[in-house]
Amino acid sequence: MIMSTRKNEVGIIGLGEIPYGEHWDLSLRELASLAIEVAFDSVQKGGFDKGDVGALFVGNAAAEMFVGQGHVNALVADAAGLLNVPSFRIEAADASGAAALRAAYLAVKSGMIDTAMVVGVEKMWDQTSNPRVTSILANTMLDHDWEVEPGLTYTSAFAMMARAYFEEFGVNKEHLSAVPEKNHFNATLNPNAHFKRAFTREQVLKSQIVADPLGLLDCSPVTDGASVVILAADEKIPEYSDSPVWIKGSGQGQDYLALHSRESLTTFEAVKKAAKMAFKQAGITNPREQVDVIEAHDSFSIAELIALESMGFYQPGKAALATFEGETSLNGSLPVSPSGGLKAKGHPLGATGVGQIVELCLQLLGKAGKRQIKDAKVGVAQSLGGTGATALVNVLTIDE
Amino acid sequence: MIMSTRKNEVGIIGLGEIPYGEHWDLSLRELASLAIEVAFDSVQKGGFDKGDVGALFVGNAAAEMFVGQGHVNALVADAAGLLNVPSFRIEAADASGAAALRAAYLAVKSGMIDTAMVVGVEKMWDQTSNPRVTSILANTMLDHDWEVEPGLTYTSAFAMMARAYFEEFGVNKEHLSAVPEKNHFNATLNPNAHFKRAFTREQVLKSQIVADPLGLLDCSPVTDGASVVILAADEKIPEYSDSPVWIKGSGQGQDYLALHSRESLTTFEAVKKAAKMAFKQAGITNPREQVDVIEAHDSFSIAELIALESMGFYQPGKAALATFEGETSLNGSLPVSPSGGLKAKGHPLGATGVGQIVELCLQLLGKAGKRQIKDAKVGVAQSLGGTGATALVNVLTIDE
Repeated sequence: MIMSTRKNEVGIIGLGEIPYGEHWDLSLRELASLAIEVAFDSVQKGGFDKGDVGALFVGNAAAEMFVGQGHVNALVADAAGLLNVPSFRIEAADASGAAALRAAYLAVKSGMIDTAMVVGVEKMWDQTSNPRVTSILANTMLDHDWEVEPGLTYTSAFAMMARAYFEEFGVNKEHLSAVPEKNHFNATLNPNAHFKRAFTREQVLKSQIVADPLGLLDCSPVTDGASVVILAADEKIPEYSDSPVWIKGSGQGQDYLALHSRESLTTFEAVKKAAKMAFKQAGITNPREQVDVIEAHDSFSIAELIALESMGFYQPGKAALATFEGETSLNGSLPVSPSGGLKAKGHPLGATGVGQIVELCLQLLGKAGKRQIKDAKVGVAQSLGGTGATALVNVLTIDE
Repeated sequence: MIMSTRKNEVGIIGLGEIPYGEHWDLSLRELASLAIEVAFDSVQKGGFDKGDVGALFVGNAAAEMFVGQGHVNALVADAAGLLNVPSFRIEAADASGAAALRAAYLAVKSGMIDTAMVVGVEKMWDQTSNPRVTSILANTMLDHDWEVEPGLTYTSAFAMMARAYFEEFGVNKEHLSAVPEKNHFNATLNPNAHFKRAFTREQVLKSQIVADPLGLLDCSPVTDGASVVILAADEKIPEYSDSPVWIKGSGQGQDYLALHSRESLTTFEAVKKAAKMAFKQAGITNPREQVDVIEAHDSFSIAELIALESMGFYQPGKAALATFEGETSLNGSLPVSPSGGLKAKGHPLGATGVGQIVELCLQLLGKAGKRQIKDAKVGVAQSLGGTGATALVNVLTIDE
């Protein structure tokens, strides 16, 4: 850990990711360390090695329940050979990766460290825990005492939101089906996506019901994955990179944990608060005009619509029709989740929020291949914990 | 969250704790929110309320496994009515509380927030998880794949350390028994301790063997508890307190997760690194002379001895005889764990590291009642994750 004077800006100088999917041959420690290797190799000017990492922040939602492993910071530090680096494990349900990014951002801002590595990782495919996956997901996301014990599941919570949304805004499942259709198409262009396969709107609409009105193709999958970003204080950046991606705004919001305490099922108050904080810091006053690309948290199709509205990109109830009409498609006026989103890139809980940052960096740097958004300069990543008790919004930009 | 310019020092302006023990009538959320109420009420000048909390850092080791609850940041924020406060849950096995304190310290140092609340909490007594407590503790602390699957437990790992220590330094179990004897005596003077009961050295020596050579009275107990501290940037402190306790140094170190990877079983490399970092920042060059009181992490009796040596208070192997001769007793030259330590105050995993800070603040402020160390001006808190893959050391002082 290198002591230094305070820096005013924090940038991203390295990215690592392993393709999301079912990795039966890779353990939690292997997923993380493979992605970390990629991140070290990605630093533009080279020369960034283990001794240069000021702190390690691991975003992981539920290794205890999936693979029986706590002390996750130490596991990842050990596996990656980062034994001289102080490490933290941050948990905030499936916003864990985004929360780890924000904790790392604050730590670099403190001036006590010059760089930080953020590792999002989740090992979800495991023979011993898979029979309990519905229970694990519910206990990871929801209020155990007041929601899980009485029988609520992760999917049924969002199904209630979808029903309320349909009723309140007069839209229907056909509109909703445009979300997974779009995200599955985008994933066909992303080599790191879990499901590189397109589905028609009709297929989404007719997929097996999991919790009415949500079908199988409205639900994000069970995915193994690891994503990594390396942050650095601005004064250190020229040593490592001539083209950093800047974190211009970082916001976080909270809401009641249990759905029954909230005033509305069709807005995410935590997302509103997070967006307000992040946009204020980044100087974004008109998000619809100033933002070029969004990575949104579609743990379920309905969540993407509500999140876009809660951030102020659409009026309440209007994201459904806009998505239906293609506005949020890759070639639309406001591309959302070019990566394929949680639905099709995959949703390895703790990795997801960091993976969104990886995707935005690739987009802003013009390295997103066939899914590249033209002239993307400002990106927004939005992450949700569970049904919305925690939310994070980060604004990324590049130097003009 | 209040934006502000950067502060150079971080102080503690509030403390809260509920008595550690078996709280069958209190849930995880209740333990946390009761301690938070005490902390709000403790702020010297009053006027510090929910709207003044810049961020919430929750240290919790294993709520997923004990009570089936992840998303612990949101649970605590919700229970305490802190819905407008961004929150993080930090996990680092039984160093979770100390890691949360350090993450909060860095966040306040960032200048992005003026204050932070650190809540350490663990609910360990639960009818559904208690039959699995040995398994839960092993999975929380150790390397699941390489230690737990082959059969190592939390206690047997420390038993190996004790055996190695005896062999290397020619001391024996009689010397070791002085640690729990001292800590149990101290706990008789602490109203918040789980076991306010003294044991003779003889009783410790003859207690039922758990993992040879460690007996029942060498092992910290299963305890429910919650401890809270409120941090503030120096510029904000005069609004709330005329007698803050300052965090003068904060250090963290890591080591291999699995014991078999380490060079020595009789030193904690992570504690060495953490102490070096914290002492350097605090300007401590001669710890034995400059430190007045220590709270050490005696998850097992042997751990206290090794930790004192790894921090540099004693040469390797010398802490045993010093303890045996009373040097670390309440009226000795270097009082260690006046609170009663993990053994007798109790070890509610995520709460413990924050509880150590609460005890040191009481000691430095002269509010430690019958266990008060005279003229204590500099205190050191030392926390260990599991068998030592994570360690934190914090140095606290008061204005002269």
